[in-house]
Amino acid sequence: MRLLSLFTAFLLSSVTAHAVAASPADIISHAPDSAWRTIPPEQLLLMTMSNGQHIIIALAPDFAPIHVANVIHLTRAHAWDSGAIIRTQENYVVQWRVRHEQTPSPKPFIEHPPAEYERPLAGLSFKALNMPDAYAPQAGFAHEWAVGTDGTNIWPAQCYGTIGVARGMPPDTGNGKELYVVNGEAPRQLDRNLAVIGRVLTGMEYLNALPRGTGPLGFYTNPHQNVRLKSVTLVSDLPAERRPSMQVMRTDSPSFNDYITARAARTDAFFVHAAHGVTLCNVPIPSREMPTR
Amino acid sequence: MRLLSLFTAFLLSSVTAHAVAASPADIISHAPDSAWRTIPPEQLLLMTMSNGQHIIIALAPDFAPIHVANVIHLTRAHAWDSGAIIRTQENYVVQWRVRHEQTPSPKPFIEHPPAEYERPLAGLSFKALNMPDAYAPQAGFAHEWAVGTDGTNIWPAQCYGTIGVARGMPPDTGNGKELYVVNGEAPRQLDRNLAVIGRVLTGMEYLNALPRGTGPLGFYTNPHQNVRLKSVTLVSDLPAERRPSMQVMRTDSPSFNDYITARAARTDAFFVHAAHGVTLCNVPIPSREMPTR
Repeated sequence: MRLLSLFTAFLLSSVTAHAVAASPADIISHAPDSAWRTIPPEQLLLMTMSNGQHIIIALAPDFAPIHVANVIHLTRAHAWDSGAIIRTQENYVVQWRVRHEQTPSPKPFIEHPPAEYERPLAGLSFKALNMPDAYAPQAGFAHEWAVGTDGTNIWPAQCYGTIGVARGMPPDTGNGKELYVVNGEAPRQLDRNLAVIGRVLTGMEYLNALPRGTGPLGFYTNPHQNVRLKSVTLVSDLPAERRPSMQVMRTDSPSFNDYITARAARTDAFFVHAAHGVTLCNVPIPSREMPTR
Repeated sequence: MRLLSLFTAFLLSSVTAHAVAASPADIISHAPDSAWRTIPPEQLLLMTMSNGQHIIIALAPDFAPIHVANVIHLTRAHAWDSGAIIRTQENYVVQWRVRHEQTPSPKPFIEHPPAEYERPLAGLSFKALNMPDAYAPQAGFAHEWAVGTDGTNIWPAQCYGTIGVARGMPPDTGNGKELYVVNGEAPRQLDRNLAVIGRVLTGMEYLNALPRGTGPLGFYTNPHQNVRLKSVTLVSDLPAERRPSMQVMRTDSPSFNDYITARAARTDAFFVHAAHGVTLCNVPIPSREMPTR
């Protein structure tokens, strides 16, 4: 029995029949419909790899509207079709680009967007995490995004799954034709240094299982190593019956409060020491496919 | 030129010809020999996958001596040869075990080790990070390990690359026959809940590019999916000419102070906002192969 338990699936997890109090997973599975916000289809991208794997992306127009608009224009112009993943750097980022380096810009398109790295706090509801944060005066959540704030401005945190716009040295050189996603320990030194256009909701397990590039910074050294994108589609452009419908947990809901509490002080029977603390990027905002019923 | 910069390798990196001040990478590459500690070969494991890929592991006898001794006894008994990676959970852990679930225990071996999850601070040199930490009263470094402390006890932090002993519900059920490594955002809620026996120094890029398991918690559902280990060897048991020789940066060295400073306030020209802060697990302790000269 000891060996059985040692070698079966409940190790290290909140998903256990022995739980003595609500685990984060329990809270997510029991959250009422009122705790969930449906993401509008015009803020969702469906990325399909050449092997048929799907990645669903939520866009962040509240934070980098011009960059997001560029990405949408590229999407509608099919610029990502036959695009490529050109970089996989362990514990840092996976990066992809449009079909060719010289892909013409669609119209409309902003070639040199301003540095949309932070925005005024005014106009967004901020919910403080109330935990020590090494990177921002205050950390918390705004409209289902993990953020930092100094009380005047607010910016998305570069957590695992965050998608940003790669750029060269001048801040206005990232136009959206090349994107990256954080695939490891949150590189929050990037906060306010790159434009965040969204985050991956599903499919990170595909993006992150690619062979690491062997060139500097994890770039693939041979273009034949590049993994191809089949297509990226704005979900609102899909026929209604083919649209994935995604929901995120409202960060102003009681369920989310419970979820933070459970992340900060795990009470599952497995834990012998509760931390009574949690970092911003270790409170991943739950998302789910909208249940059909 | 703009496009060139947009599509070439210096993006998002400290490795740039435009650096105006020492980057973390610069500090590592210029650190004097006195900043490095050579790891004794009896504290290094060489794990070889069935496809020939190598992973080098540093053991942590200061923190979990009985568990580490068990792992060494299993190694010398060749219990890992033809072992298997049985679990890859995205943004959590990769887990592996000895050859068979019923692998007999070598002698000597402790079937039910005590919960070596923390130890007295006395006897170790602690260097404070002096940054806010959400998980421990104080975070820092001790003998080239990232740690938390409450002033009385000290424990390893479960950062990316940390290797721990999987267990069942009772704390004494992890004997070392099944290990995991953290492969994403640091799950520091595990601090003081599992025995840490070491960390991966090289080869995470192989362990973390495996397909994710599709069973609950990322377990592989079909044993044929398991990736095989060829062998694990204690480096001191290798012939001298075949021993990898690894060094870690001394956390009590001036170079490491400079490194922390640079991680906390990136001054590379790429950065337009310096965070002036950094989390414990975002200060990965540098390691290198000992230079030959």
